Amino acid sequence: MMRMVDLIIKKREGKTLSKEEIAFWINGYTKGEIPDYQTSAMCMAIVFQGMDEKEVTHLTACMEHSGQTLDLSRLKGIKVDKHSTGGVGDKTSLVLGPMVVACGATFAKLSGRGLGHTGGTLDKLEAIPSFDVHISGEQFIKQVNDIGIVLAGQTEALVPADKKMYALRDVTGTVESIPLIAASIMSKKLAAGTDTILLDVTVGSGAFMKDIVQAKALANLMVKIGQGLNRDTRAVISHMAEPLGLAIGNALEVKEAINALQGKGPEDLMELCYTCGAIILLQAKLATSIEQGRTKLEKVIADGSAFNLFVKMVIAQGGDPSFILKPEKFPLAKNIITIKAGKAGYIKSVNALEIGLAAMRLGGGRTTIEDSIDMAAGIVLTKKVGAKIKQNEVLAYVHTNKDLLAVSPIVDQVTNAFVISAHYVAKPQVILEIIGL
Amino acid sequence: MMRMVDLIIKKREGKTLSKEEIAFWINGYTKGEIPDYQTSAMCMAIVFQGMDEKEVTHLTACMEHSGQTLDLSRLKGIKVDKHSTGGVGDKTSLVLGPMVVACGATFAKLSGRGLGHTGGTLDKLEAIPSFDVHISGEQFIKQVNDIGIVLAGQTEALVPADKKMYALRDVTGTVESIPLIAASIMSKKLAAGTDTILLDVTVGSGAFMKDIVQAKALANLMVKIGQGLNRDTRAVISHMAEPLGLAIGNALEVKEAINALQGKGPEDLMELCYTCGAIILLQAKLATSIEQGRTKLEKVIADGSAFNLFVKMVIAQGGDPSFILKPEKFPLAKNIITIKAGKAGYIKSVNALEIGLAAMRLGGGRTTIEDSIDMAAGIVLTKKVGAKIKQNEVLAYVHTNKDLLAVSPIVDQVTNAFVISAHYVAKPQVILEIIGL
Repeated sequence: MMRMVDLIIKKREGKTLSKEEIAFWINGYTKGEIPDYQTSAMCMAIVFQGMDEKEVTHLTACMEHSGQTLDLSRLKGIKVDKHSTGGVGDKTSLVLGPMVVACGATFAKLSGRGLGHTGGTLDKLEAIPSFDVHISGEQFIKQVNDIGIVLAGQTEALVPADKKMYALRDVTGTVESIPLIAASIMSKKLAAGTDTILLDVTVGSGAFMKDIVQAKALANLMVKIGQGLNRDTRAVISHMAEPLGLAIGNALEVKEAINALQGKGPEDLMELCYTCGAIILLQAKLATSIEQGRTKLEKVIADGSAFNLFVKMVIAQGGDPSFILKPEKFPLAKNIITIKAGKAGYIKSVNALEIGLAAMRLGGGRTTIEDSIDMAAGIVLTKKVGAKIKQNEVLAYVHTNKDLLAVSPIVDQVTNAFVISAHYVAKPQVILEIIGL
Repeated sequence: MMRMVDLIIKKREGKTLSKEEIAFWINGYTKGEIPDYQTSAMCMAIVFQGMDEKEVTHLTACMEHSGQTLDLSRLKGIKVDKHSTGGVGDKTSLVLGPMVVACGATFAKLSGRGLGHTGGTLDKLEAIPSFDVHISGEQFIKQVNDIGIVLAGQTEALVPADKKMYALRDVTGTVESIPLIAASIMSKKLAAGTDTILLDVTVGSGAFMKDIVQAKALANLMVKIGQGLNRDTRAVISHMAEPLGLAIGNALEVKEAINALQGKGPEDLMELCYTCGAIILLQAKLATSIEQGRTKLEKVIADGSAFNLFVKMVIAQGGDPSFILKPEKFPLAKNIITIKAGKAGYIKSVNALEIGLAAMRLGGGRTTIEDSIDMAAGIVLTKKVGAKIKQNEVLAYVHTNKDLLAVSPIVDQVTNAFVISAHYVAKPQVILEIIGL
């Protein structure tokens, strides 16, 4: 008879768990037959001993099938999905989705909420008045068939093993394990049922992965898991040492996404959307090369068809399209505080973690999952890494509905996030590596 | 505010926990405010990252004070205690206790039950008809003051943190950690309130510690914990590759203990009792050297005063002394099977683990804590490591009340526990090292 304690000891001793043993654990844990205290000990053993590619693939498949999975086979076209491991100012999905759909792909994406210093796509969408992210299965299918795009919240029925295990890992110091992170992300992506998956593994202070070696290991592992389970999976590694784009905060980011869809987005955001979009078009067999994909994407931005698709999606999900057509309708925060450079020079770094935490403290994010969000709060950068600045030149604007006195330490936090060098600093690359091409 | 998850992460990263942090964990866990799943993750982190001497000392002190502690200060004399980390055929306490008390020490010992391949002192004592190991606090004090010796079961009120944590470690693969083992043993010994502690750390197939390096590390750590908490603590490391003495099984071991108290015990058992006894007499300031202690102990064996003390203890705890005076009264098992040597040579090894497991399977031990025990079941060896034997010479007798057919695989197990070499094999030393002299 299989006993969980023997499997924990096996992993603790650095041995490899079989497919049957992993299934015994995950199925037992999902059903409540294996208690939290054995799963937390197993997760800690995995933190130290790791898992090989086969083990993680088995783990992912078990978690994927721990609940319902979406069957998108009735939907027309090649269904594509994109997932970011999280960052600050990351509004990519809002821009990239309409872009690839305008080129002929089908974008059926389940998104999450923000927590801590990172934002969430669902929160950003809800900055659009009456936009509804809670969509029934039927409506989901209908909307995808009608307009080719939907951005919705995850259903409770998908991947219950991950929900349960993630909550446990969060309180037992077992989050930081590449195999467990990979299985958590990939089980959700696989259960969501798309034909292709593009992973954006962010790296830097604002990302979960702080160094490039870890980020590469995670990206490679997830691509192998996807391929091992017969799903077209690719990954990019992207720069998240400074925030992505200029806007951080929900309504502020929607406005930046609208700008981007009109071809006026910040350079790094546009670059990330073009590169990721081109890989997705390759995956969807809508382009035969990155270059061809990029040309197609530039066209749907230039002719307004990507922007139109965003408007259509907002209408389909009950949002008020007048805000998209006239972004100046988004209410501004009561106070907008200007942050200026103390000295001339070059911006050496803009700490994404500090900016993300400051935006959260301004009311734009959550400390705990129950917190409510101030949609107008946030930060707009005017300078990014590599920019040459004069003394007293504006670096950023802090948007807040809080009292000036109360936000003074947060303003300091934003100011201190900027490091100015006397010497020339090069602009960073946004895409550091592409995996699976 | 202190959070358990931060302490787990700290330990996972190999950092040192402070006294306050360890107290937060152990007090919270004992009260049920910190859940099992966080404690199991912490224990697994400790398995990998260890604890330094200070941390283990804090942990031990916290566990010691998690419930009641015994106050033996009202009792006369220097109260001595001895603890073995477990073995096969280990009836030392039954012999050693009366020996040191006959020399003037006070022996107030709390013992445990057997589980798996190792026996327990309480089970052995219960082989004596109507012997009572359940003793009230008042009776405990009275008996110690009257005759200087008591062997009783542990009370539920002592060290609840260890009880709870040990049960958890047992099912989460976190037993094998020297700091956790040391804290578990020492917290119980310290709470039992004696003035001195002698630890017998066994090493070999029949012991918990399989190699000498681990055994030394555990012994050294426990001595340091005891000294750090101002308790006179010493340790011996003893050989447990083959069983101790010749008898394995509850009534069989009591009979061997009676023999030993009359000076007729097997050589290794006598040697262990004399050496441990001499160290205890040093600790109790009843001898100024090992040699002087040993001489005193030989005298109380030779003049029958140690044996008489054992009889007194049996009477005080309600047991039938006629069995001690006439050990042939102990009922023999229905079947006694003779095991003979397949070839001539020297006994190279007698696997203590296999002999212990065989004795358990014969009915002499427990697979789970609920199992009942057949007091007559067991094994009596006639040859030990280093003995020269002829073909067909008797190696052991298997005592069992089970059917011959049912015990056939157990008889094979006992036979296979003997390895016979064509070449000369030296008798092993029973005491491998003394720590703290």
